[in-house]
Amino acid sequence: MKSHRIAMLGTGLIADFYTMTLHGQRSRDAVSVVYSRTKERGDAFARRWGIAHATTSIDEAIRHPDVDVVVVALPNHLHEEAVAAAARAGKAVLCTKPLGRTAAEAKRMLDEVKRAGVFAGYLEDLCYTPKTLKSIESVRAGEVGDVLWVRSREAHPGPHSAWFWDEKQAGGGCIVDLGCHCIEIIRNFVGKGNRPVEVLCWKDTLVHPITAEDNAIALIRFESGAMGQFEVSWTFRGGMDLRDEVAGTRGTIWLNHFLRTGFEMFTARAADGYVAEKAETSSGWLFPVGDEVAALGYIDMFTDMFNAMEAGREPRETFRDGYIVNAVMDACFRSVEAHGWAKVELDWRGAATPRIARASEMLDGQIVVKRELLPDGREKLILKDPATGVCSDRVA
Amino acid sequence: MKSHRIAMLGTGLIADFYTMTLHGQRSRDAVSVVYSRTKERGDAFARRWGIAHATTSIDEAIRHPDVDVVVVALPNHLHEEAVAAAARAGKAVLCTKPLGRTAAEAKRMLDEVKRAGVFAGYLEDLCYTPKTLKSIESVRAGEVGDVLWVRSREAHPGPHSAWFWDEKQAGGGCIVDLGCHCIEIIRNFVGKGNRPVEVLCWKDTLVHPITAEDNAIALIRFESGAMGQFEVSWTFRGGMDLRDEVAGTRGTIWLNHFLRTGFEMFTARAADGYVAEKAETSSGWLFPVGDEVAALGYIDMFTDMFNAMEAGREPRETFRDGYIVNAVMDACFRSVEAHGWAKVELDWRGAATPRIARASEMLDGQIVVKRELLPDGREKLILKDPATGVCSDRVA
Amino acid sequence: MKSHRIAMLGTGLIADFYTMTLHGQRSRDAVSVVYSRTKERGDAFARRWGIAHATTSIDEAIRHPDVDVVVVALPNHLHEEAVAAAARAGKAVLCTKPLGRTAAEAKRMLDEVKRAGVFAGYLEDLCYTPKTLKSIESVRAGEVGDVLWVRSREAHPGPHSAWFWDEKQAGGGCIVDLGCHCIEIIRNFVGKGNRPVEVLCWKDTLVHPITAEDNAIALIRFESGAMGQFEVSWTFRGGMDLRDEVAGTRGTIWLNHFLRTGFEMFTARAADGYVAEKAETSSGWLFPVGDEVAALGYIDMFTDMFNAMEAGREPRETFRDGYIVNAVMDACFRSVEAHGWAKVELDWRGAATPRIARASEMLDGQIVVKRELLPDGREKLILKDPATGVCSDRVA
Amino acid sequence: MKSHRIAMLGTGLIADFYTMTLHGQRSRDAVSVVYSRTKERGDAFARRWGIAHATTSIDEAIRHPDVDVVVVALPNHLHEEAVAAAARAGKAVLCTKPLGRTAAEAKRMLDEVKRAGVFAGYLEDLCYTPKTLKSIESVRAGEVGDVLWVRSREAHPGPHSAWFWDEKQAGGGCIVDLGCHCIEIIRNFVGKGNRPVEVLCWKDTLVHPITAEDNAIALIRFESGAMGQFEVSWTFRGGMDLRDEVAGTRGTIWLNHFLRTGFEMFTARAADGYVAEKAETSSGWLFPVGDEVAALGYIDMFTDMFNAMEAGREPRETFRDGYIVNAVMDACFRSVEAHGWAKVELDWRGAATPRIARASEMLDGQIVVKRELLPDGREKLILKDPATGVCSDRVA
Repeated sequence: MKSHRIAMLGTGLIADFYTMTLHGQRSRDAVSVVYSRTKERGDAFARRWGIAHATTSIDEAIRHPDVDVVVVALPNHLHEEAVAAAARAGKAVLCTKPLGRTAAEAKRMLDEVKRAGVFAGYLEDLCYTPKTLKSIESVRAGEVGDVLWVRSREAHPGPHSAWFWDEKQAGGGCIVDLGCHCIEIIRNFVGKGNRPVEVLCWKDTLVHPITAEDNAIALIRFESGAMGQFEVSWTFRGGMDLRDEVAGTRGTIWLNHFLRTGFEMFTARAADGYVAEKAETSSGWLFPVGDEVAALGYIDMFTDMFNAMEAGREPRETFRDGYIVNAVMDACFRSVEAHGWAKVELDWRGAATPRIARASEMLDGQIVVKRELLPDGREKLILKDPATGVCSDRVA
Repeated sequence: MKSHRIAMLGTGLIADFYTMTLHGQRSRDAVSVVYSRTKERGDAFARRWGIAHATTSIDEAIRHPDVDVVVVALPNHLHEEAVAAAARAGKAVLCTKPLGRTAAEAKRMLDEVKRAGVFAGYLEDLCYTPKTLKSIESVRAGEVGDVLWVRSREAHPGPHSAWFWDEKQAGGGCIVDLGCHCIEIIRNFVGKGNRPVEVLCWKDTLVHPITAEDNAIALIRFESGAMGQFEVSWTFRGGMDLRDEVAGTRGTIWLNHFLRTGFEMFTARAADGYVAEKAETSSGWLFPVGDEVAALGYIDMFTDMFNAMEAGREPRETFRDGYIVNAVMDACFRSVEAHGWAKVELDWRGAATPRIARASEMLDGQIVVKRELLPDGREKLILKDPATGVCSDRVA
Repeated sequence: MKSHRIAMLGTGLIADFYTMTLHGQRSRDAVSVVYSRTKERGDAFARRWGIAHATTSIDEAIRHPDVDVVVVALPNHLHEEAVAAAARAGKAVLCTKPLGRTAAEAKRMLDEVKRAGVFAGYLEDLCYTPKTLKSIESVRAGEVGDVLWVRSREAHPGPHSAWFWDEKQAGGGCIVDLGCHCIEIIRNFVGKGNRPVEVLCWKDTLVHPITAEDNAIALIRFESGAMGQFEVSWTFRGGMDLRDEVAGTRGTIWLNHFLRTGFEMFTARAADGYVAEKAETSSGWLFPVGDEVAALGYIDMFTDMFNAMEAGREPRETFRDGYIVNAVMDACFRSVEAHGWAKVELDWRGAATPRIARASEMLDGQIVVKRELLPDGREKLILKDPATGVCSDRVA
Repeated sequence: MKSHRIAMLGTGLIADFYTMTLHGQRSRDAVSVVYSRTKERGDAFARRWGIAHATTSIDEAIRHPDVDVVVVALPNHLHEEAVAAAARAGKAVLCTKPLGRTAAEAKRMLDEVKRAGVFAGYLEDLCYTPKTLKSIESVRAGEVGDVLWVRSREAHPGPHSAWFWDEKQAGGGCIVDLGCHCIEIIRNFVGKGNRPVEVLCWKDTLVHPITAEDNAIALIRFESGAMGQFEVSWTFRGGMDLRDEVAGTRGTIWLNHFLRTGFEMFTARAADGYVAEKAETSSGWLFPVGDEVAALGYIDMFTDMFNAMEAGREPRETFRDGYIVNAVMDACFRSVEAHGWAKVELDWRGAATPRIARASEMLDGQIVVKRELLPDGREKLILKDPATGVCSDRVA
């Protein structure tokens, strides 16, 4: 039974979620050292989670002899430096999302860990939620047929820490904060070997007094013809809206990760307590999540990371995935500037994906456009004459 | 108590829905004449609904002395001619959606009824569903604040009649069949005086062996900055997906008109019967709609039309609305060709709409970016220095 | 085209709902006279609904020459007198629920209208909701097999008028106010010819400072073996909970009439307006109903009443149904006193209903208790030896 | 970091779920020995889960030197013997639900483990689901006020193993199989110190060819006046219906653990695979559960058990709880025989619980029965004269 000792870099909300997960249930892994830029926050974090060492030196944290795994839970502009330091120290490194602020930054990180030969994992928790994992499995088993369209939506009233709101540190607004999740969720459903070809994006700053976008929508065309669609917002009212939809030639999947999960509560008094991450109210109808850490994928994510490390295999979510996500986000920003579609510029290593095949059933020399059950039980066919292109119907 | 006698032009599914509505409940209005291009269908329709006269002459139907209102329920390419004939006969005319195949066609119909001075109504049923009417009222009462984004989605496995599948008769594929609903729903939520400025559209023919699109997504930017988004599909599996979402600065609205309305049924045997329009299965978990005609807005639509006629006012949905919808759809097709945004070309008669105002609360000389309740009950503020643009947080 | 002129007796909430329905859409029927015990309320009601005559004389209202139908929308203790007066005047009479305060009272009303030979309808709106009507149809078509269990739940924070809270006027608390709905809904699902045999009831006054019950639960055993279950409460928090569930040998039905109907709204500000009957909050997540009058069955109810009157047939809900409901409620109160099951005392005119048949499939001389699909696709059977009663399993 | 080595007694579905949990995620605990009555099943189980030893001797399993914890996952009639053997061996013992077939049997097991001084835990997984744990916390924090009513429902098409269907081995039908869960869930919500006083139960064998009940409903009156209600069925169609509802003086909780958890899938083809425990169909609309083991409470249950063991404290669910559940089930069967309420016969060690306090607000010498917001924003009060008991209303 192997176990891991972790250096946690960062003490924000995400570091709390990570540590809660790592120390949760009957886990055999634990955080040994925490790094924070300020001593007070580091000490408080160490006390909160029973961690032996807190330090304000990132190198001390990484090189601590107890530590075999470095978790990067820092603001976006500090990822590259932290990943490089971990790689140089020969430690396994797990980096929070997004990997970089740009594809160039992400590519350097990817190259760094390759060069150093260290294990590297991309902490894309929302691709690990139990619902997502199970539905990806269904999709791969062919239960919805060919995937035609994936919608991934993440919207809430805006992030908790100041740096997210600063375009320079973050690399953008809600596209970078939330869109990175959506893009990778979409890739998991259309197939990771399905190349993202071009992107159409709208963004605007509608509500908040900031320079970065607080609302954006993008379309991502994949090589198979499948269409990805993400909607991200920092201005949503009513809690955290976290939904995915998949449409295939044979089926449909609808996932709701947060606001409608079978847990509904009405309370007439103002509760003092915490309802759920980004919940907006504490009275009236509330929609708590049973186990947020599990529902958001953190548990399955770290399980996969450590199991992969021990088995000497790649995790489900790699730095290459993080790099591809950054490349798609870069294309989003270029699309906005170009006021039209923008190509995804990418060092693609995957294979080619064939176009989704259209139906082509023939009947009596006619193309069958559609079969449909009538209220009276009979079947109605829409037929097309292949020569003239004229459509007609026939009830059988 | 006034009542109306109607000439129904057409005998397809929509004519059935219209007549079911007109003859339903304790209605005082009734269809007196039905016109069909084929005698058999006209006679069958007349028998089905207890209508006194059936004819294959459109002029005879329109000019029938009993008739004061003409309902156009014909394929798209026949609307213009039928509207013109009704206008010439000085009869009130109600035309099904979309008004025309193009804005040019719609504009001619609009001009025609103006010139003739007859009452004209646009039969856009989905803007009249009880849920839609009540939520539009909430939006107008300011309950969601400024509208930022509206999503309207209509998806099902494809239409029932052959002519829909023929691009020439229909004027397009699912954009023309379904997008017209979505565009007008979006306009009702963002405000009809809010000019649609430009459009970004993707369309593709992914599944069916046809030339028209069977899937499309479009973004519509309105003058206020609000974003409309429609998703239409003829390849959806699982029934008829009819949902709208509105996000405002102060609130959110989610409408589900069909598949999840509080009526759920599991049946282990294959039922012989009809579940709901475009339902795909008749066993397993089914989601019927209590009263389809009411839920789809037909009842409130005809009530408004006849009440408007009697009161000498405009109905909620006019030929001008139909024309604007066509103008937006034209822009969709141009956007696809241009591979980027396309302007909406439109004879706009409305006023100008100001830009959505951004928040601008100040505190101690700092811009308040966000206020947020912490789990422990304290309030956290994200503040931005107006001089440097640097963000910081403060817990109070 | 026949139309009706109505005398509305009463001006409370239910009279408002009735009149809103009668005057709604393109209705051809209308209220001509309103009776109230106080002149102010009568006059205000007449103004509100555009009614020509208001009177404080019940006889004047009933005997008004314009009037052919009397609607009794009075407190429970005034039903008998009003029904008798209408019957004596030879007018059709429609009485709100519950018919009487006791079965004896209801029986006298039933006898009165029979004797007078007037049309009589029981205004049990919740048996006429579009969802209920459609699901009753499904049940009758055999889609859920034999009905085994019906749960009907009605719960809200308590009624609006003072007389409901007074046991003498009302005849009881929430059993009489809400249970009457549930009992008749249950009867519609198990079949009206299925005799209610005995009743088990718990009631208590848990919250309100009253003598009548504010919470009750009852089980009703029908002749077929089917079990009806109702839960009623005047102490529910969160709005109006109006749900029905049906379990059959082959299927299941779940109806939610109010709080989850596909219309969800979040609003951050305190709205001034009205959300829905008995909604408790006006901010946070709200669940409005599109068209309350339709969703609660009022439209279909009056349609059936007037259509039945014109066709010379019985309406779906008759005074006999009202009487049976009272008999079941009487048994509820006797059950509480007896601290156990109580027989339903009833002048039953229906036929006998056979016991639900148990499954009896045989295989190789063994009784098949259950067939079940395993995760691996194989079928597992639970078999019982008819001689020894010993169960075993077999995987095929 | 302590870890545990477990002897798993039994190889049925529940043993699979337990072992999947114990070996899941990054667990530090593991099954070392498995006992089965048949060598083939034991060997297959050991292979399936990578367990070193399989044996057909229960004593060998329990006394194995590696083992410090015994998990009893055997049919009900074998619990007592297995628990006694573990206690004699001085090993910690965790027993599946129900603890015994009768309260007498459960009491003997409780006495046995007390006498031996071993750690004993009651494996009542459904009291440990993340939704249940979080909502119990909300209830204890007062967010729903005083609990008035709890409904717990568990219904599916019947159990998987033959012994469940045999009344002698199981001790009853669905009451014993499913009711035990519901009773303990109810106790957690009304408060474990709230004594169950009396029980009213209906049971019947409606569908299956067995002697035990396949449907039952019970009411449990607690000392505070709170009412528990369970509904259990082996004849439900549509999957596994696992829902709880709590009504309090200030709030409401609705939990849906299985069929509506925010994961919805439509598939047009017959999947070969497994959807979820007791799912009935593999095409059409399906409602899978993301992580069944987590959603059903297994993970949090074993975490609590082992943490309690290590901390030297009682687990949340003890043998005393199991004994109380059996006492309530005994009362259910006596109630059926008595055709009325039956006292719960119980060696109660808890304190007394006061009656739920009724509201008693006074205004101008009148009792305030209800306050209510009118559509127009005014407040309406229902007032009761304390002398006469007469109710009146007042709008302010």
